[in-house]
Amino acid sequence: MKGDEMFQTFEVSARPEQGPPRLAALRTAIAEAGLDGWITPRADIHQGEYVAERDALLQWLTGFTGSAGFCAVTAGAAAVFVDGRYKLQLREQVADVFTPVDWPDTRLPAWLRESLPQGGRVGYDPWLHTVAEVAAWEKALAGSGVEMVEHANLVAPLWAERPAPPDAPFRIWPIEVAGEEAADKRARLGKELAASGAGVAVLTSPDSIAWLLNIRGGDVRCNPVPHALAFLHEDGSVDLFARAGKADPVRSHLGDGVRLHEQDAFEAALGRLAGPVLVDPRSCPRAVVDVLDAAGIAHVAGSDPCLLPKARKNAAELRGMRAAHRRDGVAMVRFLAWLAEEAPKGNLTEISVVEKLEGFRRASGKLLEVSFDTIAGAGPHGAINHYRVTTDTDLPVRDGELLLVDSGGQYPDGTTDITRTMAVGKPPPGAAGAYTRVLKGMVALSRVRFPHKVTGAHLDALARYHLWLAGQDYDHGTGHGVGAGLSVHEGPQRISRLSDVELEPGMIVSNEPGYYREGEFGIRIENLLVVEEKPAPEGGDPDRRWLGFETLTFVPLERRLIVSDMLDLSERAWVDSYHAEVLKRIGPRVEGETLAWLKAACAPL
Amino acid sequence: MKGDEMFQTFEVSARPEQGPPRLAALRTAIAEAGLDGWITPRADIHQGEYVAERDALLQWLTGFTGSAGFCAVTAGAAAVFVDGRYKLQLREQVADVFTPVDWPDTRLPAWLRESLPQGGRVGYDPWLHTVAEVAAWEKALAGSGVEMVEHANLVAPLWAERPAPPDAPFRIWPIEVAGEEAADKRARLGKELAASGAGVAVLTSPDSIAWLLNIRGGDVRCNPVPHALAFLHEDGSVDLFARAGKADPVRSHLGDGVRLHEQDAFEAALGRLAGPVLVDPRSCPRAVVDVLDAAGIAHVAGSDPCLLPKARKNAAELRGMRAAHRRDGVAMVRFLAWLAEEAPKGNLTEISVVEKLEGFRRASGKLLEVSFDTIAGAGPHGAINHYRVTTDTDLPVRDGELLLVDSGGQYPDGTTDITRTMAVGKPPPGAAGAYTRVLKGMVALSRVRFPHKVTGAHLDALARYHLWLAGQDYDHGTGHGVGAGLSVHEGPQRISRLSDVELEPGMIVSNEPGYYREGEFGIRIENLLVVEEKPAPEGGDPDRRWLGFETLTFVPLERRLIVSDMLDLSERAWVDSYHAEVLKRIGPRVEGETLAWLKAACAPL
Repeated sequence: MKGDEMFQTFEVSARPEQGPPRLAALRTAIAEAGLDGWITPRADIHQGEYVAERDALLQWLTGFTGSAGFCAVTAGAAAVFVDGRYKLQLREQVADVFTPVDWPDTRLPAWLRESLPQGGRVGYDPWLHTVAEVAAWEKALAGSGVEMVEHANLVAPLWAERPAPPDAPFRIWPIEVAGEEAADKRARLGKELAASGAGVAVLTSPDSIAWLLNIRGGDVRCNPVPHALAFLHEDGSVDLFARAGKADPVRSHLGDGVRLHEQDAFEAALGRLAGPVLVDPRSCPRAVVDVLDAAGIAHVAGSDPCLLPKARKNAAELRGMRAAHRRDGVAMVRFLAWLAEEAPKGNLTEISVVEKLEGFRRASGKLLEVSFDTIAGAGPHGAINHYRVTTDTDLPVRDGELLLVDSGGQYPDGTTDITRTMAVGKPPPGAAGAYTRVLKGMVALSRVRFPHKVTGAHLDALARYHLWLAGQDYDHGTGHGVGAGLSVHEGPQRISRLSDVELEPGMIVSNEPGYYREGEFGIRIENLLVVEEKPAPEGGDPDRRWLGFETLTFVPLERRLIVSDMLDLSERAWVDSYHAEVLKRIGPRVEGETLAWLKAACAPL
Repeated sequence: MKGDEMFQTFEVSARPEQGPPRLAALRTAIAEAGLDGWITPRADIHQGEYVAERDALLQWLTGFTGSAGFCAVTAGAAAVFVDGRYKLQLREQVADVFTPVDWPDTRLPAWLRESLPQGGRVGYDPWLHTVAEVAAWEKALAGSGVEMVEHANLVAPLWAERPAPPDAPFRIWPIEVAGEEAADKRARLGKELAASGAGVAVLTSPDSIAWLLNIRGGDVRCNPVPHALAFLHEDGSVDLFARAGKADPVRSHLGDGVRLHEQDAFEAALGRLAGPVLVDPRSCPRAVVDVLDAAGIAHVAGSDPCLLPKARKNAAELRGMRAAHRRDGVAMVRFLAWLAEEAPKGNLTEISVVEKLEGFRRASGKLLEVSFDTIAGAGPHGAINHYRVTTDTDLPVRDGELLLVDSGGQYPDGTTDITRTMAVGKPPPGAAGAYTRVLKGMVALSRVRFPHKVTGAHLDALARYHLWLAGQDYDHGTGHGVGAGLSVHEGPQRISRLSDVELEPGMIVSNEPGYYREGEFGIRIENLLVVEEKPAPEGGDPDRRWLGFETLTFVPLERRLIVSDMLDLSERAWVDSYHAEVLKRIGPRVEGETLAWLKAACAPL
């Protein structure tokens, strides 16, 4: 808890005018290094969604504050690659000297082939790019005459007032919510490692280290991950590399099986490992493999061994997540009741909405942090995916518009993430129909039953079907994985056409279809779901193993945007039964006008 | 045309009792070759669905007549690997000395690891297995101590009365239905080949050769493909390898750009190619790569260059397919009207149904061949996927049971494939509900609109959703690609969780969800669909490129199995409008009692 200070702030962090001189300085550095180009990623060494201020090289260079993207600079061109979510945001945050590029429609190698002459050499920092990323570049550039070249970072030295590395102390994630002792996790995973033929695994994802050791940290905003690096050995012991003093508060919790080291010692220790070393090419920096290769140490490519065990939440983790969602649901209901009362008066702005919502969460007395900056998009801002309001952009919440609010909290027992879209007054033309189609998709996914071996790629279309019929769609995945008291975006499972991970019991995903009409409004409805075993119903095949979803989120939907006639009987029954469950769970925890609002909001359609 | 003789026959082709002595002989041959095992695939060198009698080594060895599967024999075990479709059929066709293995749940390398000691050497004929298949084995067996060894075929020499190779003459596929001159196709694909950096492509798929050269053949049943091999050069010229005389009837049609050779000359010619040679690892025999490697000729892996162009049907091909479906629809309607009249009398059997249906198709005067053996499954036989009736299995069509009929024809302008499931008298318990759920899935896929870059893996669940909700499913893909006057199963597109091919305008797929209750009944409804561009509807996003399906098949559904209350308004509207279209297209082509039946069958629900 940070006391009375808001977790979310509203300053204008992007200053497009700083971009041009920084770009010029980088071009000078590129030339001095004898290179023809330089890649600046969003990522730090840990490849997490959030980076510490010190590691925000992409933002420093370009002004772009989004959570995914990268910049490629040559003598003649400077491109910022972002996906559909960030198209509008990018336009507002970066100066004209940077050209927006639609990623993944255009990929880096294709762009480099176009932008550079034969023999072009493009530099990158091997600690900031994964093994897989570099391999994909190299494959796509084979025979092109363009070469990717490892080099010490060129952007960092240009940043005169670069902040210090974060040094938040680690804390214990208690066994009551972890559900399995860290020593047991280490022993279990060590055995699996040995069975796979590897002697040691390199862990560079803070989520994995946090889960494995039952610790949390505070090195970046919103995600309570500890910035550290580690080796997991086949005997279940761990070498943990972290900056001085950070691990002191958890030293006895970690126990004898965990050896502490200074983070600076990581590279040298890597060069002394006995192989074969397991390296996850999708998260490990390319530099790790370089160090191993230079030392002649055998390494094998494979998944981070914590990835799937962490994704399959155990009973204690699910209990914690349910409790966190109940608490968060109370805050959301208080917020929605307040909004229903206040919005029509015409005095609210996006910032006041964000502040009030954080206040309701804080009032639970348990909020550790917001799990991401609340997205409160009024009217046209609702159509900007991942919109973050600042004092410069703050719009009033107007009558006749929609308000999209996507938010969540970090609690001592779990992590939440919920989106609701509300109508203020009479909805704009087309909004209710689109909302109902989004709802139909969200309901379809909530109630689906599916067999084993199905991935999120197979289910994604169920959430889009009714939008597609109407010629509408959304440019983001339907759902991301969610951590338990960890990162609100956590893999490997997700509901997306790009997913190849089978859904398994205990995995948590968001269910958040949407519809966005640029310049007018945005709609998104988001609940969190847990994959669970489901028995076959009467008349079904009991010899098949069925899975389905348990809903974690219980907060009313916007009935004023639901066109009842567009729902079939079973969809209507689902909505009514969902609302009955919301009332049952949240009703006893609120009172007075809030309870009255909740009862009305949860009445059958 | 074969005159009065039926295309489909009903002899009992599997003789399980022949299996044990043949297996014993193979084991002797394995030992004499110094091997520990031998793999017998279903495939011939062309990897098509049908093989000539001479190439049916798997059937000769085991008795199994299915279109997919393989047998692995060691000293101690003999396994026949088949997928869910063939589980029941396998049990009836092979002797106990062969163990059925569920594929792909158990894959060959895993089975070999279990079945063989360290150092085990398993032989295979490199002309009968693809490059990709062998590579997958080798990858999965790395470090296992089990080795795959190329060897001259061990089964073929055991077959004393092995038939001669097929020698059906090739015929011209006229420009009116091909839509593009073969010379233009050759030139176009040759240019693309050159642009990709390859000098020549090896073509081993008869479908590709047939499409590229606008020819057809008669070397296997049902699929009018020419057994031949070819090189396509970057200058657009082709070397065609075929057995003596087969290409004579099309010699002038082929023109100067196609050089004819004896099929026996293929291997030597391969060793004289100037690389780089494009080889499709998914269809090319491993032996092709061996020959190139031995001759030091560079080769690159890539898709058969005919695969996608052939899959994207042009306007003339689609016109032909529509005409073939109209003609086939008339035959199906006559058949269904006849069945509705005759079945209640209790005198029909599966064989009489197959004969009558083929008769109605022949009566069109245009039937070249059936496009596969009609599946007519009465009662419990409906639950056997790919059931083929024989004099031994022929069941009466009984009151109170379902009859599943999956059939199709080859016509001079196209290929059809349709399944209808009918109730004779009162349907068995659970059948109407399941039929309606299957129908809902079939309708969902028929009417879907979807954006570009979507694959069949993303759409498959739409056809299953309502079955899944009820705890029901089917163990086959939802749809396969279909050729135009070619193979009724044609890739690369399909509607399946395994598909990674983007759907593109002109591609044809079947839409055939089903439900099977072992020992009781089977349900399947199948129409063919063409992918087409669709404009955005009113209120939709016109700046997205939308795709959808045009339905090719117009034949009434079984209204006595439709539970109207289970359909929502839009599903009901789809069925009514489909039936109205059936009546409009087929009505003017039938008369009397058939027309009366059709009108009743097509009345609004």
